[in-house]
Amino acid sequence: MEDILKQIDFNKSGGLVTAIAVDDATGDILMVAYMNEESLRLTLEQGEAVYWSRSRKKLWHKGEQSGNVQRVKAIYTDCDADAILLRIEQVGIAACHTGKRSCFYRKLENGGFVEVGEQIFDPEKVYAK
Amino acid sequence: MEDILKQIDFNKSGGLVTAIAVDDATGDILMVAYMNEESLRLTLEQGEAVYWSRSRKKLWHKGEQSGNVQRVKAIYTDCDADAILLRIEQVGIAACHTGKRSCFYRKLENGGFVEVGEQIFDPEKVYAK
Repeated sequence: MEDILKQIDFNKSGGLVTAIAVDDATGDILMVAYMNEESLRLTLEQGEAVYWSRSRKKLWHKGEQSGNVQRVKAIYTDCDADAILLRIEQVGIAACHTGKRSCFYRKLENGGFVEVGEQIFDPEKVYAK
Repeated sequence: MEDILKQIDFNKSGGLVTAIAVDDATGDILMVAYMNEESLRLTLEQGEAVYWSRSRKKLWHKGEQSGNVQRVKAIYTDCDADAILLRIEQVGIAACHTGKRSCFYRKLENGGFVEVGEQIFDPEKVYAK
């Protein structure tokens, strides 16, 4: 475990690396988030994605509230070891807190961003509790 | 142009947003880099990916040295508008300065990272000039 963590460069961006979550079955990009060393350690230990929330400044076990956890199927790092790619199984299909399948649901068209992509759940129902 | 730039949140990470380059034909993730407002403006104007190099602290027209430019086919942003996904045509096939097709060529297997992915060019020949 420590050997793996040592190979990732957490020093470039305030202790964080960029983490991209990709649907293992389809290859679709579901979201981008950030990890510090502890969140990568927990991800490796638990087999589910744990990120560092930059807005809440705390560890974020993805799906802890919605139940839509991400089961990790494979992990890659890039040439300079400051980004991580997770191939995951997205429980509940939707990765985005808006209820969209992917967070990248706004596409630039004719000079503006328009909504695309599947709406899987109603966020007001899922996060109301 | 200014309307588009205003919709992106450059304030969360020192003026930068994360930018993911995806092969438009295959959906494969080729690399992750960063953009400031000026690099996104140039990307929109030129139709080729221009990033901000965090290590060199300057604008980086991807492929300026190798010729392996990225022709932008579509642009998406995510739910909180602090990440950008570019669907691109990768001239020269390889996106990585190592000569690999994708920068994410190291896969975690049996407790260590092993090299996977196609080697497209020899970096010593391409960057020797």
